[in-house]
Amino acid sequence: MKISIIGSGNVASALAKSINQSGHTIDAIFGRDRKKASDLAQSVNSKAVDRLSDLPDNSDIYLLAVKDDAIVEVASAIRTETGILAHTSGATPINIFEGIQKNYGVFYPLQTFSAELEANFEELPICISANNSENEAKLKELAASICPNVYSISEEQRKGLHVAAVFANNFSNFLFSAAFDICNREALNFDMLKPLIRQTLRKIEIADPEKIQTGPARRGDESTISLHMKWLEKHAPEYSQLYEVLTEAIIKKYEN
Amino acid sequence: MKISIIGSGNVASALAKSINQSGHTIDAIFGRDRKKASDLAQSVNSKAVDRLSDLPDNSDIYLLAVKDDAIVEVASAIRTETGILAHTSGATPINIFEGIQKNYGVFYPLQTFSAELEANFEELPICISANNSENEAKLKELAASICPNVYSISEEQRKGLHVAAVFANNFSNFLFSAAFDICNREALNFDMLKPLIRQTLRKIEIADPEKIQTGPARRGDESTISLHMKWLEKHAPEYSQLYEVLTEAIIKKYEN
Repeated sequence: MKISIIGSGNVASALAKSINQSGHTIDAIFGRDRKKASDLAQSVNSKAVDRLSDLPDNSDIYLLAVKDDAIVEVASAIRTETGILAHTSGATPINIFEGIQKNYGVFYPLQTFSAELEANFEELPICISANNSENEAKLKELAASICPNVYSISEEQRKGLHVAAVFANNFSNFLFSAAFDICNREALNFDMLKPLIRQTLRKIEIADPEKIQTGPARRGDESTISLHMKWLEKHAPEYSQLYEVLTEAIIKKYEN
Repeated sequence: MKISIIGSGNVASALAKSINQSGHTIDAIFGRDRKKASDLAQSVNSKAVDRLSDLPDNSDIYLLAVKDDAIVEVASAIRTETGILAHTSGATPINIFEGIQKNYGVFYPLQTFSAELEANFEELPICISANNSENEAKLKELAASICPNVYSISEEQRKGLHVAAVFANNFSNFLFSAAFDICNREALNFDMLKPLIRQTLRKIEIADPEKIQTGPARRGDESTISLHMKWLEKHAPEYSQLYEVLTEAIIKKYEN
């Protein structure tokens, strides 16, 4: 397949590398950051273009790995009769392309991308939607060539999945960050907590998280909860409300 | 060393096995659940006793792996002039032993113990406190014989560490549980999120969690936050407040 990639950030880079390795042709890469776009293009045997209108009009698929609020603008500037435009966003509806392009869809790799850590397409899922079954089949074909876990999901499912991903990734990281912060204030090395965090993960690999909930809130251990609340009010008051809301939510979930 | 163990739950079992493997003698095991205590005793070449007063009076160390609110009662029932009593609780102050025993301390393995998943003493830290330096040295000696990561920590540090552990383990598990719940409601397999969760963990192995926070709240992406809030209110209202509090906390942390 012939692919054009719009974007030169972490998602665009990961996709470009993986698509190139799978033997597809990357026709061109557009990125607002010209240096990054041209470095990326070089690394995947492609060329960078300076304007969206310079992208070829005959790519099979145009992957839009840009910020959510740039998708419409980019989609409007791409000229193609036959190519499928697909954004890579978890939160953006598919109908954002309506009236702008004929062939479109969503190509959503469910992962947290970063420059430091390579994305593992052997492991992560790619979620596909499209405006018709032919386009869906083509997007799935591309996805399947770089990744064994390809799912067709509905718009409603993608919305739910994106919310779930925020809980599973962004919010859990913030809790680790709170723990890090609390350790720092007591001159403790956060590394002390890493085995505990690793074990938490190992547990959810073998059991549903609902079934392995532990801790003072789960036990209804009010004296420990009250000790913790007092400690937080004195030493880290910015996490008091969070402790309270999480504790209440756990108590409520398991009270029956 | 000669060790008596009080308790037959997950912490007691993990400690007994590890201590036995390190070549110490386990004099006796007391557990309210006689069957469990005697099964455990058998597996570590020890014997179970039916009453606390039947424990030998000359063990070097008595490890109290019982519920927090049972520690005082157990400590009062053990007869020894020379042995050190140590509880294994993160939340219980050391001075709970004051006036009850002469030699005492805390032997706190920072981990989440469960029947399904073996504790890895090569990895987890054990945190030690004691009422004098001689007792501390003995507790550290035992700890070091089963685990390479032994720390002397203050009472204040242990309190903070226990709060941090609740964030890092109990609360993060609850977020995974929320994500699981949301997936279920949309007929999505929670396994789809596991690569994301694994990647979250890989990231904190190489960078401080504060420095790798991502997501709509971190970006200040109000339109996505508002989409998510609407979705939650309609599909999973019990997680709305949690979403809101976490989002506000993240925004506040990074606003400057």
